[in-house]
Amino acid sequence: MAERAALEELVRLQGERVRGLKQQKASAEQIEEEVAKLLKLKAQLGPDEGKQKFVLKTPKETLTGKYGEDSKLIYDLKDQGGELLSLRYDLTVPFARYLAMNKLTNIKRYHIAKVYRRDNPAMTRGRYREFYQCDFDIAGQFDPMIPDAECLKIMCEILSSLQIGDFLVKVNDRRILDGMFAICGVPDSKFRTICSSVDKLDKVSWEEVKNEMVGEKGLTPEVADHIGDYVQQHGGVSLVEQLLQDPKLSQNKQALEGLEDLKLLFEYLTLFGIADKISFDLSLARGLDYYTGVIYEAVLLQTPVRPGEEPLGVGSVAAGGRYDGLVGMFDPKGRKVPCVGLSIGVERIFSIVEQRLEALEEKVRTTETQVLVASAQKRLLEERLKLVSELWDAGIKAELLYKKNPKLLNQLQYCEEAGIPLVAIIGEQELKDGVIKLRSVASREEVDVRREDLVEEIKRRTSPALCIC
Amino acid sequence: MAERAALEELVRLQGERVRGLKQQKASAEQIEEEVAKLLKLKAQLGPDEGKQKFVLKTPKETLTGKYGEDSKLIYDLKDQGGELLSLRYDLTVPFARYLAMNKLTNIKRYHIAKVYRRDNPAMTRGRYREFYQCDFDIAGQFDPMIPDAECLKIMCEILSSLQIGDFLVKVNDRRILDGMFAICGVPDSKFRTICSSVDKLDKVSWEEVKNEMVGEKGLTPEVADHIGDYVQQHGGVSLVEQLLQDPKLSQNKQALEGLEDLKLLFEYLTLFGIADKISFDLSLARGLDYYTGVIYEAVLLQTPVRPGEEPLGVGSVAAGGRYDGLVGMFDPKGRKVPCVGLSIGVERIFSIVEQRLEALEEKVRTTETQVLVASAQKRLLEERLKLVSELWDAGIKAELLYKKNPKLLNQLQYCEEAGIPLVAIIGEQELKDGVIKLRSVASREEVDVRREDLVEEIKRRTSPALCIC
Repeated sequence: MAERAALEELVRLQGERVRGLKQQKASAEQIEEEVAKLLKLKAQLGPDEGKQKFVLKTPKETLTGKYGEDSKLIYDLKDQGGELLSLRYDLTVPFARYLAMNKLTNIKRYHIAKVYRRDNPAMTRGRYREFYQCDFDIAGQFDPMIPDAECLKIMCEILSSLQIGDFLVKVNDRRILDGMFAICGVPDSKFRTICSSVDKLDKVSWEEVKNEMVGEKGLTPEVADHIGDYVQQHGGVSLVEQLLQDPKLSQNKQALEGLEDLKLLFEYLTLFGIADKISFDLSLARGLDYYTGVIYEAVLLQTPVRPGEEPLGVGSVAAGGRYDGLVGMFDPKGRKVPCVGLSIGVERIFSIVEQRLEALEEKVRTTETQVLVASAQKRLLEERLKLVSELWDAGIKAELLYKKNPKLLNQLQYCEEAGIPLVAIIGEQELKDGVIKLRSVASREEVDVRREDLVEEIKRRTSPALCIC
Repeated sequence: MAERAALEELVRLQGERVRGLKQQKASAEQIEEEVAKLLKLKAQLGPDEGKQKFVLKTPKETLTGKYGEDSKLIYDLKDQGGELLSLRYDLTVPFARYLAMNKLTNIKRYHIAKVYRRDNPAMTRGRYREFYQCDFDIAGQFDPMIPDAECLKIMCEILSSLQIGDFLVKVNDRRILDGMFAICGVPDSKFRTICSSVDKLDKVSWEEVKNEMVGEKGLTPEVADHIGDYVQQHGGVSLVEQLLQDPKLSQNKQALEGLEDLKLLFEYLTLFGIADKISFDLSLARGLDYYTGVIYEAVLLQTPVRPGEEPLGVGSVAAGGRYDGLVGMFDPKGRKVPCVGLSIGVERIFSIVEQRLEALEEKVRTTETQVLVASAQKRLLEERLKLVSELWDAGIKAELLYKKNPKLLNQLQYCEEAGIPLVAIIGEQELKDGVIKLRSVASREEVDVRREDLVEEIKRRTSPALCIC
């Protein structure tokens, strides 16, 4: 330990030396040299605490007790060392763990990565067991509903910018649901399980949900019917105001908080110009345990359907909500970091976009290549390699066919197929004249460009304003 | 089956109808309507064969017999359904499987994703059990060494563009190694295991490698020494030419092919202007079984070291080679697709870049935000929300503090910390005058901009040419 302390002291002193040299505007070489020494010392010091914190011994426990009844969809796995491991079920729990382990109290970030569900795959609807999610989250202690409104704005922006047809964002609040369950006489212990029954209302009829509540989950028919009266309602801010007048519901502290926040949220969403996309839907419950406040789910209004299915065939394409307790579950001292976020079902959206493009027979350009380096005669491979290298070094996206002596026609056809807008043609005469023949694939026009001007000419012709991609 | 055939026929007819309408320049609504019908039919038809091919029943088998002695590093896992599964060890084998399953014979692509190794983590050097790799591969039947040269050019481009110090790319060829083993008298059955012994020469001394060959792997000391004479050599194209004159080696068909290809490769690398970065190194063997031709590995020449370690502390930061047999292993008919590619060790490179920035105390800008929407007085949250929404809708990267009444000073300080170049300040007077005060954080200059001109002014000031990020 004394040894480590000594090393730490050395690192500190060396750090000061580097700072000193920089203040004295010492030579780059000299600074680099001292930096190298500093890095050596740091390496000897080994991983610092911050880094050690990343070694989480039992990640399995990270996932348990977060997903409620969805837990059965977690892919458990067992590594050769015998540690219990699972594939991550979403990006939210890992994000919360990351905040807690790094003591972050304030961050806004997006994250695109794979998650895993032990679900039944349905390829045509973009349901896979391994699939990408794109998450956006805002963590931190802020004034009510401002970050929540931004999340919904972003969700609407993304879905509007994609050509996947019209959509609707259902919004609700966990506190309204809990308050509603309380006044309907659902025992606290059954809130979560009744929650996930309610959540099925977008797929099955109220009758089926009621049977589950009474038959499987032991509610009395009266309690279930009372819930039914509420969860079958949906509307705009007017429904929020109506429920604020509801004699029973408005007496419940939680429900009241939820309703007042929703009212504020609708104000902000109106300022963001998206209130018309939002539907306050009391049947929206979201299966996951970790939500504590506002929750939302975006559904497409026109998508491919199979016989017997509801029009909302692909299910939700984006969803999220507020989870103020999750970070605290990972913090030894239980320090809370309020969070709100959303997940986009990338694969589901892709499957819809791809099906539409396929049906419309629209060709998607698969390369960003600006120019193909071609040759008009044989024995010009070396010249093509030299030129393509020049273009690469100048930051031009260039390609050549991997053949020693390709036919010019094949090279031009390749451009047509790949949608490459320009061809730089090398010929023996051009080499003599110090020029390159630059051909526009679309117009088939050809002009001789002086080799030293080629890069600028290509940049000019493929600048964003003119780019065909 | 007859039912499916009928459905397929319906899909075909509906597809023709859509095409017809498009040719007749029918209304967008009408086309959309017919497209919706087509999608409905396709959804009823269910996943097509192409998609069904993606359901690979025993992925475990995908990984076995690909990695040779590295196999022990594969993370095996077991899902709840009892299927045997493993976490992918690299991106190369999945890429080959993808080509075979989709009958692709020609593709160039890059792929950034996570891979898993049951190795000993070393955080300070960016060695993790779960880490990102960035792969680039060229698949297809082409003329010799052209794609191979492009892979090395790309590797050098990437490593040069990062500020991680000087680097060297070791190059060798599996056929030269095999030919060398043959003429040294190594039994065929031991080629691969001797290969991975040789591969350790960058970490341990020749003596230790020899002991392993003789003690553990049963070579005679004479055979080992004969190998030693070869594998301790390295140099440029001159060494290739020298070995082409080697009486024994040049008589071996495989070795000769490898040497001639390397000679050609050096020609192309000279045209690409990177020959000086390349070292022909006979000790480079690469542990993995699937390589069949040229192999390469990039090592940094100055990096943080721990006591007792070789200067090349972080090990290789990029590596790859040619693997012409791998795709055929997944194809029922064994159809081969020649491939060459490379992997970049993203995390290792990040750890080096981060350590250098830390040591140099250079601040990295963590946001692309162009403008913060701020307010000069209280009770202007609604106005800030309206303005930030306008800017978002116009494609401007804008933020606001999530507070009802933030102090102007705090808003300006936030810009300083986050490196946000502009502040759009709303005040009561500005609202009356229909202007916004636009402040440059760097110069602290403020000008009143007419609200309708704000977007253009922000775009002008943060256009790439002027952007500070």
